Amino acid sequence: MINEERLLLHLAELAKIGSTPEGGVNRFSFTAEEMVANLYIKQLMEAAGMTVFTDAIGNIIGELNSHIDAPAIVLGSHIDTVPNGGHYDGALGVLSAIEVIHTLQDNDIPLKRPVKVIAFKDEEGTRFQFGMIGSRAAAGTLQLADLQRTDEEGISIAEAMQQDGLDAANVAEAKLSNVECYVELHIEQGKVLEKADIGVGVVTGIAGPLWQQITLTGTAEHAGATPMALRQDALVGASLIIAKIEELARQYPAAVATVGKLSVSPNGVNVIPGEVTFTVDIRDIEEEVRNALEQEIHQAAQAIAQERQLTLSIETLQRVAPVKCDTEIQQIIAQAIADNGQQVVHLPSGAGHDAMQFNGQFPVAMIFVRSKDGISHNPKEFTSTEDIIAGANVLKQTLLQLDQR
Amino acid sequence: MINEERLLLHLAELAKIGSTPEGGVNRFSFTAEEMVANLYIKQLMEAAGMTVFTDAIGNIIGELNSHIDAPAIVLGSHIDTVPNGGHYDGALGVLSAIEVIHTLQDNDIPLKRPVKVIAFKDEEGTRFQFGMIGSRAAAGTLQLADLQRTDEEGISIAEAMQQDGLDAANVAEAKLSNVECYVELHIEQGKVLEKADIGVGVVTGIAGPLWQQITLTGTAEHAGATPMALRQDALVGASLIIAKIEELARQYPAAVATVGKLSVSPNGVNVIPGEVTFTVDIRDIEEEVRNALEQEIHQAAQAIAQERQLTLSIETLQRVAPVKCDTEIQQIIAQAIADNGQQVVHLPSGAGHDAMQFNGQFPVAMIFVRSKDGISHNPKEFTSTEDIIAGANVLKQTLLQLDQR
Repeated sequence: MINEERLLLHLAELAKIGSTPEGGVNRFSFTAEEMVANLYIKQLMEAAGMTVFTDAIGNIIGELNSHIDAPAIVLGSHIDTVPNGGHYDGALGVLSAIEVIHTLQDNDIPLKRPVKVIAFKDEEGTRFQFGMIGSRAAAGTLQLADLQRTDEEGISIAEAMQQDGLDAANVAEAKLSNVECYVELHIEQGKVLEKADIGVGVVTGIAGPLWQQITLTGTAEHAGATPMALRQDALVGASLIIAKIEELARQYPAAVATVGKLSVSPNGVNVIPGEVTFTVDIRDIEEEVRNALEQEIHQAAQAIAQERQLTLSIETLQRVAPVKCDTEIQQIIAQAIADNGQQVVHLPSGAGHDAMQFNGQFPVAMIFVRSKDGISHNPKEFTSTEDIIAGANVLKQTLLQLDQR
Repeated sequence: MINEERLLLHLAELAKIGSTPEGGVNRFSFTAEEMVANLYIKQLMEAAGMTVFTDAIGNIIGELNSHIDAPAIVLGSHIDTVPNGGHYDGALGVLSAIEVIHTLQDNDIPLKRPVKVIAFKDEEGTRFQFGMIGSRAAAGTLQLADLQRTDEEGISIAEAMQQDGLDAANVAEAKLSNVECYVELHIEQGKVLEKADIGVGVVTGIAGPLWQQITLTGTAEHAGATPMALRQDALVGASLIIAKIEELARQYPAAVATVGKLSVSPNGVNVIPGEVTFTVDIRDIEEEVRNALEQEIHQAAQAIAQERQLTLSIETLQRVAPVKCDTEIQQIIAQAIADNGQQVVHLPSGAGHDAMQFNGQFPVAMIFVRSKDGISHNPKEFTSTEDIIAGANVLKQTLLQLDQR
């Protein structure tokens, strides 16, 4: 069993670095808070018996058995946060992985394979509106052009790296090689485990987001002087499409589709809306399912627009491929959960994670830990001690099983 | 027949006062542009044979037969505009009324009753976000407290009056007395006459607006991590209500209901909307119809909110009583249109007009003139010469008939 007190202490200590008056945390990439947190993580990794180094992008990597010439098992997550974020998002995965290694060290349990524990640079994308910087670099997919993206003050990622002693020209060196698999523990950030009354779950895949922006154009006219039959009301058209999007998404077991952002023009109490723009975020862990839902939404939107004499345009903002978690590792995680005396629940990850970046390069898997009320990206984010311990123990047993393969 | 060239010349000259680079007009109350326009209107009234004075609120009033002790027939409209407004809204009614008097004068046609032509102060409410100031004063309903409303620079109506030599303390003196009826010619600002291919129509009533604000509260959660079945999406709820509002309004022959303004919170692409606030503008010329539609909308909104576990709140922003136009004067106007060789169409006014202010005090009636494409409050506002002349001739014949009663 992992050391409960130590893991809880590390979580509490890390949460103090960048803490906000509301009880949340601000830790953005290449800031003083993140640098202090990185030093703290390095100390914990060293105390757990690992050799620590910072790679070319600024990922903190703790290594065990690096002298053994075999593919490494990689565990990881991130320690940066969204603005006024919670204590668990990312941090729990990094600290649980360190605790697993520390526990094995305490109990003199040797591992046969090399293991790396990685705290990835800037998963959230808060500072540069561009996330998963560290895991992209580790996957070798980060482009030099990406490092020209700037924060609100006009400082580019490359400049921020330079201030931290890193050279943007070397990012290719961060690419991981000789990896057996990647396993990430993370809070669920949803309510599925809570509704099932279960502390730890097996992730089946990560539903890549497809983001599209739909614009409907009608005619802005006087709300009093235009009879109902003579209107081309863009908001009524949008409303019919939004209701239909929900109806279509509900027909699939795991797909989700969300209209989260909407603006009306001219947006006057007594003016019929002439133009409405809204986003739709479509996700599924199966790309074919997501494509099918996308097509159904487009067809429904076109039919509604045509019937109401509205002009429709659809723009794709991003299309991220879904990632399936490795079936064999899912079985190992499921067995670890069962051995821990819990029921096994499989669930998809709707949110994106560093694990996505390694799709197609080596097997990835994820362990989810229950989030109270599904709340995340918020000071109210909470995971119980019981679930934290259960999650870390599942991670430990998963690592041991992977090491034995 | 009225003097076509003269009326068109006056319209063109008035449009030059406060003209904008886009071809529109800016004439706001108590500004230099409005003062110049008022002087021009006074000149035209005097040239038409009227005695002119400015009342306590700044209405410009031309009088004919003021020596005759009998209830007066009042014709009027306004000459202020919305920002970058058109050439016809308000102006056409004032200039047509002056032209009618001028034509009668040219042709030595005497009237038996006193007649007043009034250019009302600030109908649009552009400067002080409070309209129909002149007609409210003429109705005796303008409160001293209303005159404390301020413009963007903090200047109150009372202060603006003072700068123009008017004393706010005297506004009660502007109340009209001994009035037979009020008739206003105005552009339709809608498409009903255009769709019917008719230049001039009889207004049945003025649909007072009922403005309400509806707030739906659900739960803002991660769009990826929350399955469809576990959501309380405020925007999907709002969409169902908005679609239903249109459906309900369409069941009435003349009612309109419009959701013109809407905001989503937190309004993020990947966040389920936690709160949506939108306005609904409900109008009908029959108050009972408007009340019935309001109730139906509330019931539908409550049912949808309940079904979706959303919290609903409804706030009334304004409730203006609808005004019915006098049936006998409607018949006189209809006869005038028929005598002018046109088909007679009756239509409600969805927009508010100065005429509303006299509801319950004396009979009111309105004549609508066709608006090209229904466009108003815009430099593109246009009414053809043919329709202008037809409208002014109908106003002239209506006045003659009213004078003969």
